Amino acid sequence: MGLTIAQKIIKEHLISGEMTVGSEIALRIDQTLTQDATGTMAYLEFETMGIPRVRTELSVAYIDHNTLQSGFENADDHRFIQSMAKKYGLYFSRPGNGICHQVHLERLGKPGKTLIGSDSHTPTGGGIGMLAMGAGGLDVAVAMGGGAYYITMPKMYKVNLTGKLRDFVTAKDVSLEILRILSVKGGVGAIIEWGGPGVATLSVPERATITNMGTELGATTSIFPSDEVTRAFLEAEGRGEDYRELASDDDAVYDKVIDIDLSSLKPMIACPHSPDNVVEVESLKGTKVDQVCIGSCTNSSLFDMLKVAALLKGKTIKPEVSLSISPGSKQVLSMLADCGALSDILASGARVLECACGPCIGMGFSPNSGGVSLRTFNRNFEGRSGTADGQVYLVSPETAVAAALTGEITDPCLLGTMPEVTVPETFKIDDSALIPPASPEEAEELAILRGPNIKAFPDSKPQEDVLVAPLVLKVGDNITTDHIMPAGSKILPYRSNIPHLSQFCFAVCDETFPERAKAAGTSIIVGGNNYGQGSSREHAALVPLYLGVRAVVTKSFARIHVANLINAGIMPLTFKNPDDYDKVNQGDQLKLTDIYAGMDSGEMTLTDVTTGESFALVCSFTDRQKEILKAGSLLKYVAKEGK
Amino acid sequence: MGLTIAQKIIKEHLISGEMTVGSEIALRIDQTLTQDATGTMAYLEFETMGIPRVRTELSVAYIDHNTLQSGFENADDHRFIQSMAKKYGLYFSRPGNGICHQVHLERLGKPGKTLIGSDSHTPTGGGIGMLAMGAGGLDVAVAMGGGAYYITMPKMYKVNLTGKLRDFVTAKDVSLEILRILSVKGGVGAIIEWGGPGVATLSVPERATITNMGTELGATTSIFPSDEVTRAFLEAEGRGEDYRELASDDDAVYDKVIDIDLSSLKPMIACPHSPDNVVEVESLKGTKVDQVCIGSCTNSSLFDMLKVAALLKGKTIKPEVSLSISPGSKQVLSMLADCGALSDILASGARVLECACGPCIGMGFSPNSGGVSLRTFNRNFEGRSGTADGQVYLVSPETAVAAALTGEITDPCLLGTMPEVTVPETFKIDDSALIPPASPEEAEELAILRGPNIKAFPDSKPQEDVLVAPLVLKVGDNITTDHIMPAGSKILPYRSNIPHLSQFCFAVCDETFPERAKAAGTSIIVGGNNYGQGSSREHAALVPLYLGVRAVVTKSFARIHVANLINAGIMPLTFKNPDDYDKVNQGDQLKLTDIYAGMDSGEMTLTDVTTGESFALVCSFTDRQKEILKAGSLLKYVAKEGK
Repeated sequence: MGLTIAQKIIKEHLISGEMTVGSEIALRIDQTLTQDATGTMAYLEFETMGIPRVRTELSVAYIDHNTLQSGFENADDHRFIQSMAKKYGLYFSRPGNGICHQVHLERLGKPGKTLIGSDSHTPTGGGIGMLAMGAGGLDVAVAMGGGAYYITMPKMYKVNLTGKLRDFVTAKDVSLEILRILSVKGGVGAIIEWGGPGVATLSVPERATITNMGTELGATTSIFPSDEVTRAFLEAEGRGEDYRELASDDDAVYDKVIDIDLSSLKPMIACPHSPDNVVEVESLKGTKVDQVCIGSCTNSSLFDMLKVAALLKGKTIKPEVSLSISPGSKQVLSMLADCGALSDILASGARVLECACGPCIGMGFSPNSGGVSLRTFNRNFEGRSGTADGQVYLVSPETAVAAALTGEITDPCLLGTMPEVTVPETFKIDDSALIPPASPEEAEELAILRGPNIKAFPDSKPQEDVLVAPLVLKVGDNITTDHIMPAGSKILPYRSNIPHLSQFCFAVCDETFPERAKAAGTSIIVGGNNYGQGSSREHAALVPLYLGVRAVVTKSFARIHVANLINAGIMPLTFKNPDDYDKVNQGDQLKLTDIYAGMDSGEMTLTDVTTGESFALVCSFTDRQKEILKAGSLLKYVAKEGK
Repeated sequence: MGLTIAQKIIKEHLISGEMTVGSEIALRIDQTLTQDATGTMAYLEFETMGIPRVRTELSVAYIDHNTLQSGFENADDHRFIQSMAKKYGLYFSRPGNGICHQVHLERLGKPGKTLIGSDSHTPTGGGIGMLAMGAGGLDVAVAMGGGAYYITMPKMYKVNLTGKLRDFVTAKDVSLEILRILSVKGGVGAIIEWGGPGVATLSVPERATITNMGTELGATTSIFPSDEVTRAFLEAEGRGEDYRELASDDDAVYDKVIDIDLSSLKPMIACPHSPDNVVEVESLKGTKVDQVCIGSCTNSSLFDMLKVAALLKGKTIKPEVSLSISPGSKQVLSMLADCGALSDILASGARVLECACGPCIGMGFSPNSGGVSLRTFNRNFEGRSGTADGQVYLVSPETAVAAALTGEITDPCLLGTMPEVTVPETFKIDDSALIPPASPEEAEELAILRGPNIKAFPDSKPQEDVLVAPLVLKVGDNITTDHIMPAGSKILPYRSNIPHLSQFCFAVCDETFPERAKAAGTSIIVGGNNYGQGSSREHAALVPLYLGVRAVVTKSFARIHVANLINAGIMPLTFKNPDDYDKVNQGDQLKLTDIYAGMDSGEMTLTDVTTGESFALVCSFTDRQKEILKAGSLLKYVAKEGK
């Protein structure tokens, strides 16, 4: 039986486990990346392992999230990360060098390699045929130390592309179309492979937009073949030697195949507040727009920016619209400047922000009260923009420009003729902002720079066989990690200070939760479907751990969050009968008995002590995960096992 | 008797009063400007006056301060200001168009005109021979309505320049030298006119650096002649018709003349935490530097940026140093991009921030804990950077680059040969981001856009003849408006919300002050010399008003703050014998009697009820000021007088 691209890479990197769907497999990791919002914690974790130097082929510490620096905390964190990188053998990407995924794609990613990153959009690397996955910071720390990365062997989905995109219809619209088809939970437990004759018509930046946004499907990752288009991209980046051809076997077997005819697609838009709330742009025409943002790891490539500049050239945006442009990397910005495109963008009235994540993570440029903001980003979760009642829509750069020029949601096809945009055959290469580590000899002498905002981990306790605790919070479907642990410019600077962060846990849903959880001491949370979707932040598990949460019971979970919960020693459990969700009430006293036996059998009984009713729960833990939960957390387990 | 340049402009604009030093004079104001941090309040004030359209020759609303937008507040304020501008006949400078003073100099300022701005660095316009002064928002509102601007007729100082600056010695070093000579209170009550044969060697951007930083001397303003250099600048900006020659008469009389030989100057540096704490750069060589910031209204011209780019070209900054560059305007940034200089800057490892005030007002890019930050800005007050224990030094762009390249404080003369830098003979002109107002007919129909963070003014009560109140806070010398009402990214968004702001009043000196003042109901503050120096923010008076402060007794005051206190109905009083400052204690009950008679006679008696001692105070109020204080505030006075 033939293999898919992902199965081939998995096979090459398999340390243990069976490649059958649902089995736990352990993978050797070639490359890791972190960004600064999750990185500080990951490096604190790495440090506690006592390993003198990273054992991957390449590990990179990027700074792209906390770039506003409203206070000492961010600069302290950047210095901490930089000093860790220098001492422990990582490359350090200076702030200003760009967004991790964009820079990694341009300069460091390689087809056929495994990459894990403490950022959920790490699958961007799938655009050049990497097996690139988002992971918790602790998983990244373990991989840096040479340890395996454990996942459940995923199903294989294929999207079969035919035809060719028409002018003003883009890779972003493909991403939105697949979200419309599959929904934000449609990719759970699967790797999505893009194939078919239409693939050859898509450039690497377009492929990367699609694999980047595949994260929103809940997929383990997304991947494209590595082909002549990939080769040309790598050669343009001066890295022809990193090319390797990768294709699926003709007789590869997929669990699901979805056909998309690129020629038939129209410009799409995701409405507030979910990336799968997708309709055709045309259907919303005339909606007044207050703000437009172009950039983020989804749409900040040179190709995207050149198209934007060409469409803005000689025109002025509506006075009532505020437009921001955040180029994805120093390479992109510098090349935009050199060819005059930056001046075209500036002349239109756009604001050019730093090469960083910026508004996508609520790091500035928050819209006005109730404002309508069209963004080329990947997420439009409620409140993520920094404005609680902001109305965020996700669109392509072309649709974004159309709105900026007209002041309302407008089908970009109405802009007339698409200007010819060609990406240069060679990129401007300057890796001086990727600072190499010290030599092992020099490294020994180096001190780690630690600011006062960097606090210790939350402590964790072993899981006993019985748990009696109140249902301290009951939430609905599609709870994101932004609900659990909001980000934004006021909170992100405290990513290395769990006690401070805990004040904001679930604040979007219920401001009194942190206080109630603390008062309860030990507690249980109940949620609906797809609990924990969104970003990979392990803080969405570490902060509940700090607040005393010992179990989360839901209808279903998102993949990365399950791993993060287990790493934090919090049991992820699901209702056997989803309707039982309706039968428990916030405030009820809950009881779990025979937990150890339940971990083994895959079934536990939850008793609602307040109502007297009992419900069957299911769980699925590997032996390793059971030991982690019993130990209290992965760190406790690692310490216990001496691993 | 001949006249100085300033006297000539005053004479042309005099509405009432005698041009004798110390007399109150009323001036006709040709132009006004606001920035967004003070502007929201100024436009609220203007709105209450019920005037349908501004009556100046030109009024401009700039957005350059609150550009991070970490929440809905800033975008709401920007929309409010934009809607006010459109309706009431002002030009609106979009965010991203640049720093108000830089843009005003480039595009709108005119020699011989009067300009007041609700920003203390408005004297930048003196670089092209404007009489440009910083003022409180209410003064600006009154001027927009066609009312006079009242000041005390200042003394005239002259700085006589000879020689020519050597390479690596700059206009910034001239500013620092004059601060070293005169100190931060040396210009109080004076206008500083720059003359002598050395003037012809200085370009307009260099002159503007000097007049900008003259604010730090406490001067009413600073001014240069308008000469062939000015003409060439205006012609390069396509505004030759705005040129007018302006020179002092040969027999003009000055109260003080200071000689500076430009050829003899060395690179200078202001040490923490005052702009007059100036030494030669050489004397601090080897001090380790964590951060370098280039930009702000002092040093963000194309000329400055081209020099920086030329010095950075082909080099890489130290990995341990973080360097930010904030170009002063869209014109500067676009021209930098077009000539390749931006790419040279980016290649060095610098971070390019928005064309805005940015780090200068603590709006991002805060240094690390205890970090040493070299900045080309105009102020290094404690905490202003956003990092409480940050160590901020003020330097020229050349000295800034030297530190970024070497990682330590370094005399820039050691950089070798200064590259040739020529400013183009014509600037790139694009005023599309200066949005004109609606026509009077259209304006009538327009609504003002108001967000939920825009709160009403603090109410004020008439001043009675007796005041009994506790000395709720006693502070030392050189208290800045940053001490009284801190700015920075966490506080500035609330500039239109006085109740919220009041929590931070004097927080740098004493966190419990707001609570104690509120509890006291009515209170008095005692300060040392030069109280209220720094920014023109009227919030440093409006917030104490809200907290119940009725009088401030000091050894001496800074000019703009006195006006702001009176406008807020708070009595500024000084000890007749400065040593009496030592005899009153925080917490003492104080009593002022016969206040009305004291306002007339210029002397009052302060009794310390707690100790029983009495002290003579002096004051100097014009009839108009007495009426304002008795009415309770300028707004109450205007309402009462129907003016």
